[in-house]
Amino acid sequence: MPPVIALVGRPDCGKTTLLEKLLPELNRRGLKVGTIKHHVHAFEMDREGKDTWRHKRAGAHVVALSSPTGLGVIRDTDHDPAVPELLDRYFYDVDLVLAEGYKHTDLPKIEVFRSSVHAAPLPDRDATWLALVSDLRPEGDLPWFGLEEIAALADFLMARQPKPPPPPRASLLVDGQSVALNNFVEQILAKTITGMTSSLKGCAQAREITITIRPGDHADR
Amino acid sequence: MPPVIALVGRPDCGKTTLLEKLLPELNRRGLKVGTIKHHVHAFEMDREGKDTWRHKRAGAHVVALSSPTGLGVIRDTDHDPAVPELLDRYFYDVDLVLAEGYKHTDLPKIEVFRSSVHAAPLPDRDATWLALVSDLRPEGDLPWFGLEEIAALADFLMARQPKPPPPPRASLLVDGQSVALNNFVEQILAKTITGMTSSLKGCAQAREITITIRPGDHADR
Repeated sequence: MPPVIALVGRPDCGKTTLLEKLLPELNRRGLKVGTIKHHVHAFEMDREGKDTWRHKRAGAHVVALSSPTGLGVIRDTDHDPAVPELLDRYFYDVDLVLAEGYKHTDLPKIEVFRSSVHAAPLPDRDATWLALVSDLRPEGDLPWFGLEEIAALADFLMARQPKPPPPPRASLLVDGQSVALNNFVEQILAKTITGMTSSLKGCAQAREITITIRPGDHADR
Repeated sequence: MPPVIALVGRPDCGKTTLLEKLLPELNRRGLKVGTIKHHVHAFEMDREGKDTWRHKRAGAHVVALSSPTGLGVIRDTDHDPAVPELLDRYFYDVDLVLAEGYKHTDLPKIEVFRSSVHAAPLPDRDATWLALVSDLRPEGDLPWFGLEEIAALADFLMARQPKPPPPPRASLLVDGQSVALNNFVEQILAKTITGMTSSLKGCAQAREITITIRPGDHADR
């Protein structure tokens, strides 16, 4: 899972504007970045009148618009997904995720503050705060960047990026016979299973994971 | 993976209109349905000016808009995904997927045809055609539904729905120790691995799949 940093701050403090400036800087440094916008109300994302919009309105649970260059998916959910729930499924191929919102989580945070809009930064700053981006240098020793110090902020984030771990290995037995895996399939298997089991008790530091599946009776399918 | 049926037909034959009528009928019959719209050109799905639209335009590789009732994800792709590639990741919780387009695939197909708009149905009908929906009853024995015979078409699709297979079983050993899995985790593990390996040579009919992962050296992480 890619690392996640939450951009927090009071409404209209400039989180989206900061993201718009920061994304090109991170791209220039070779980072593939995903973003998550947290929205507490019902939302409309699609364009009214488009075919996918008509599908959704007519009762589709999930709609996808698929093309050679881009993919869009809109779905119903029955709960507010936590960020880790979104990472594996949707952000499997990015290096960093920047989230807008999620103030009340333990994600590492960068706060945006403009003294021209609000009287003070957020009152509930804690150890999850990585930095403050604002028009005023704060007291204390929290790392600080001016609203236009985007390159320095990008360098700060780059320095926090984890080094890639060594690739995990996977082997597969089917009905007792070894099945050869090419590197791509091996990595998909290994990473998926490592990821899926990592949050289970005792599995985070596993050195060997063995899973046995019995797919059931094919005659019934 | 849910079964998929492609709605095909010449441009402006009424595929989306049929889907709009069919979706409520299928929902009423208890089916959760997903849809895929195939688009061969670059697309815009988001609403101009929205925060996620700004993220994407500024260079995000993936953007998600997440709320308690709905989730939207828009991402760059470097190829035109085949339908099966979309099913596992995005349509894991629906009973049926209806796709618009994908005429040149071996997906089962329902053709839509209106004689007021086009002179003839598609010329390349083959064994993947399940039915024709049109204003004119065709010759031959292909199942046929009138443009307003939506309930009958829904019944036809319901009759094709597969019975749910028995749930696959999974067990997990970590460093030689058995790890207890609750039903939810067991099903996720079993279904994911069965799905991931099913397209590998010799795996489609496997009765037992064993995978061993060695996640690598944690000291380097």
